[in-house]
Amino acid sequence: MGEVSLLNKKTLYILIFTTTLLSVFTHFFIESEVMQFITACLSLLTWATLLGKATESVALYAGERLGGFLNATFGNAAELIISIFLLKEGLFDMVKASITGSIIGNLLLVLGLSLFFGGLKFKVQKFNSMLAGHNVSLMMLAVIALFVPAVFLQNMTTDTVNTVSIVIASVLLIGYFLWLYFSMVTHKKELGDSIDGIPNFDEKEKDAHLEWSKRTSILLLVISTVFVAIQSEWLVHNIESVAEALGWSELFVGAFLIAIIGNAAEHSAAIFLAMKNRIGAAVEIAVGSSLQIALFVAPALVFISLFLGKPMDIIFTTYEIVAIAVAAFIASSISRDGSTNWYEGILLLIVYVILGTVFFVV
Amino acid sequence: MGEVSLLNKKTLYILIFTTTLLSVFTHFFIESEVMQFITACLSLLTWATLLGKATESVALYAGERLGGFLNATFGNAAELIISIFLLKEGLFDMVKASITGSIIGNLLLVLGLSLFFGGLKFKVQKFNSMLAGHNVSLMMLAVIALFVPAVFLQNMTTDTVNTVSIVIASVLLIGYFLWLYFSMVTHKKELGDSIDGIPNFDEKEKDAHLEWSKRTSILLLVISTVFVAIQSEWLVHNIESVAEALGWSELFVGAFLIAIIGNAAEHSAAIFLAMKNRIGAAVEIAVGSSLQIALFVAPALVFISLFLGKPMDIIFTTYEIVAIAVAAFIASSISRDGSTNWYEGILLLIVYVILGTVFFVV
Amino acid sequence: MGEVSLLNKKTLYILIFTTTLLSVFTHFFIESEVMQFITACLSLLTWATLLGKATESVALYAGERLGGFLNATFGNAAELIISIFLLKEGLFDMVKASITGSIIGNLLLVLGLSLFFGGLKFKVQKFNSMLAGHNVSLMMLAVIALFVPAVFLQNMTTDTVNTVSIVIASVLLIGYFLWLYFSMVTHKKELGDSIDGIPNFDEKEKDAHLEWSKRTSILLLVISTVFVAIQSEWLVHNIESVAEALGWSELFVGAFLIAIIGNAAEHSAAIFLAMKNRIGAAVEIAVGSSLQIALFVAPALVFISLFLGKPMDIIFTTYEIVAIAVAAFIASSISRDGSTNWYEGILLLIVYVILGTVFFVV
Repeated sequence: MGEVSLLNKKTLYILIFTTTLLSVFTHFFIESEVMQFITACLSLLTWATLLGKATESVALYAGERLGGFLNATFGNAAELIISIFLLKEGLFDMVKASITGSIIGNLLLVLGLSLFFGGLKFKVQKFNSMLAGHNVSLMMLAVIALFVPAVFLQNMTTDTVNTVSIVIASVLLIGYFLWLYFSMVTHKKELGDSIDGIPNFDEKEKDAHLEWSKRTSILLLVISTVFVAIQSEWLVHNIESVAEALGWSELFVGAFLIAIIGNAAEHSAAIFLAMKNRIGAAVEIAVGSSLQIALFVAPALVFISLFLGKPMDIIFTTYEIVAIAVAAFIASSISRDGSTNWYEGILLLIVYVILGTVFFVV
Repeated sequence: MGEVSLLNKKTLYILIFTTTLLSVFTHFFIESEVMQFITACLSLLTWATLLGKATESVALYAGERLGGFLNATFGNAAELIISIFLLKEGLFDMVKASITGSIIGNLLLVLGLSLFFGGLKFKVQKFNSMLAGHNVSLMMLAVIALFVPAVFLQNMTTDTVNTVSIVIASVLLIGYFLWLYFSMVTHKKELGDSIDGIPNFDEKEKDAHLEWSKRTSILLLVISTVFVAIQSEWLVHNIESVAEALGWSELFVGAFLIAIIGNAAEHSAAIFLAMKNRIGAAVEIAVGSSLQIALFVAPALVFISLFLGKPMDIIFTTYEIVAIAVAAFIASSISRDGSTNWYEGILLLIVYVILGTVFFVV
Repeated sequence: MGEVSLLNKKTLYILIFTTTLLSVFTHFFIESEVMQFITACLSLLTWATLLGKATESVALYAGERLGGFLNATFGNAAELIISIFLLKEGLFDMVKASITGSIIGNLLLVLGLSLFFGGLKFKVQKFNSMLAGHNVSLMMLAVIALFVPAVFLQNMTTDTVNTVSIVIASVLLIGYFLWLYFSMVTHKKELGDSIDGIPNFDEKEKDAHLEWSKRTSILLLVISTVFVAIQSEWLVHNIESVAEALGWSELFVGAFLIAIIGNAAEHSAAIFLAMKNRIGAAVEIAVGSSLQIALFVAPALVFISLFLGKPMDIIFTTYEIVAIAVAAFIASSISRDGSTNWYEGILLLIVYVILGTVFFVV
């Protein structure tokens, strides 16, 4: 349980209340951006802790996959909202950089930390290998859908590029919704938790973990997601001017700084779950979140940009495609067998550091 | 059994006779290319149906792999003959486009439809996983053999390029024949049907399926292949002028239209087999056919072009290599575990649509 | 046992003594480079034979993995020493070519020959599949670590390139040492020999193989490695002028000729072990050696070059990266399942021939 178990619920509530009040006050009445940044950060951490615990509780009621899916979705809602604001201002490069950052952040940093900390406590952690195989294939689809137009459409007219972008966005959305139908309806059992001889929590242990009722857990999941989103946005808002002062490039800020902070919720939730040996849910959050961004958020943004009257195409830069492809390949190689350990977490983190370094200097 | 079971043998024979007569008459006495196209199409469909049933029958006698291999070979014979005619006229780009189209058509469209329709009837379909692994490695070899010369020989003299092409064609042919020796002789049992606990048809069920004797099945396989080849060629012949009128590019026509029609036989046979849960034979047709084209037809054409006095090199365009690599990667990722379902078929079809879209606009 | 069993220990010692004496004499007193080359070659072969037998003996005492690791390390010590001499003279291109050559030589030639000859004697050979999976992931890391800087740092200043090279070299070294810790300490058992139902030699059989005591085996391993290194260097020294006379390119000589001869020790040891069905140790030598070069020798050379005052960056040419990536992909695809046969050896050798051909003409 780590440091969280030291916190009882009451203390957590008090910490959340205090830090959030502080952050709100600073946001509206104090001009110092550094102070705003620090207080938002503190508040975010407490909300993320609550989100982690709520996710864990919902996951117990809902099963690994649905719990993980809910968490990934709530995590990406914030992402989607921020991206729409960026779209409205025509900041397409920033949108793509933050999509890239979210994908690699989830596949390398979140998954890497989960496998590492989970692996420190448990020698080998296993999850459904059929799900692992499908995750890999979906990652390949995401890489292909970004790579192919970038190669073929380099010298095309804007009209052609936009038309092709809409076609590709459409088939990706169809693919994503069929995946939900497949994984939640027709093959739910095959992709579920109790396959491969992984024991579910027995009822007794389940009771011991249930700090909240089902209804309360879901409510807390929703509320904490909302506050994590708000605090993330404040943080992001300030981080831009801070980064500017530090002389960091927009690409690095978008792909690393924003992504790390914007995914704080996934981070905490996935690591908590991994440390409780619920690696299936942790993988679902990390990998599922990347897939959701690549196969749902990105194509949805193409359509939303149409309605906003400023069509965004689906062509990413070479740097972004290389980063996504590299992350997808190493994450695939590691997760394909449905069995993880601490060293595989290290491998993912090493690749994250390599990508971070080259993005920083580019 | 689908619509085919509604057809008894007699009705099928009558349909074949009528449509073929119509097609032959139109081909020689009617000038309208649209009429020729439609009648050839109808005749092709009836022959492809017969071919599907004959393959199925031969597969029952011969086992999954040999049956699939025979079908793939008969399917590609047509391909090879058409390519030789194109070579004689020096239409190297068209040859390479149609090789590309055949490979991706088999890996994405034929395999995709087979997995999809097979998966609608059976929740999970399994085939020999050792064979699946070898298929993946052979696909990698095919991609490497096309990718490496394209990267290294960009600025080489024609002489060097032709010499290297011959060396690479030679080792690919050696590799292909050793593969046949390996899979048909030394490791036939390991790669066979009854591995992995997949039950063979028991004798009773076998009898129920046997509409023709062994000899008749093989004869029908050969005859229907010949007529499928003839009708395919007529179709292809007319399609070119039709496509021209529609303003489609040569690359799109070669890689998609010709490939789809030219592989009609594989399509019908593979889908029929998949829907009867003989997914091993369906995979052998789809994947085996691509491998045969990449590792046997393509290098054989390099040698044949030498004898024809117009040497063709083995250097494909970037677009073609990307298409083949993308198809090989997603097909590998999906087939590696020797277990398939309807959603994996959808994934392959999505990639086919993406490639079709970008080839169409390029 | 092949031809080696025909040699008793005494005959081998006499052969080693004679050929080494001859080589030393020729090296210092005869001017003909051809004679020096031939005698060094003969001496090398006898020492490599001894090295193979010593490794085999140590592997029996130490277990597959540790034995393989020791062999790979002793094999690469020679590599490292030669590279340092090249670094001192600023021959960075030659260093990178020989690193490339060692990696692809081990992954394709050594592994290919081992699987082929091992597969001729044993229908299917199996090794620890968890180790196989980790080897694949480590290969991906190596490819990523070479590919990413080459893409991102094309137009950077020398200072930036050198800084990034040091960062990447550092994380690779950390990754390598953690891998040793992981595989030798925390997960030694899981990656060990007796997993997957592979029987270890029983004590009786073990006795039958033990020609030397543990101490003698290790001593012979060290001594024969030293002499293999010396003879390799003499060979390499002469080969350069011989190659020059033949008009071969530096890239081909570095990546193929030097690598083949420099890895003679690994070749003989790995093939001997594979033919005795100790495929786990053979894979450890071949794959482990490549990984050691990519993740330890290459980054270590970056640091050593700093101390020598002539900083070498970690940016390889496109040709080199393509070669390494291609080798890593096909070797991954083949070894992923932890089961090998003769045809998989053929596949690796075919790719080696393809790469050799294009490197020769470039």
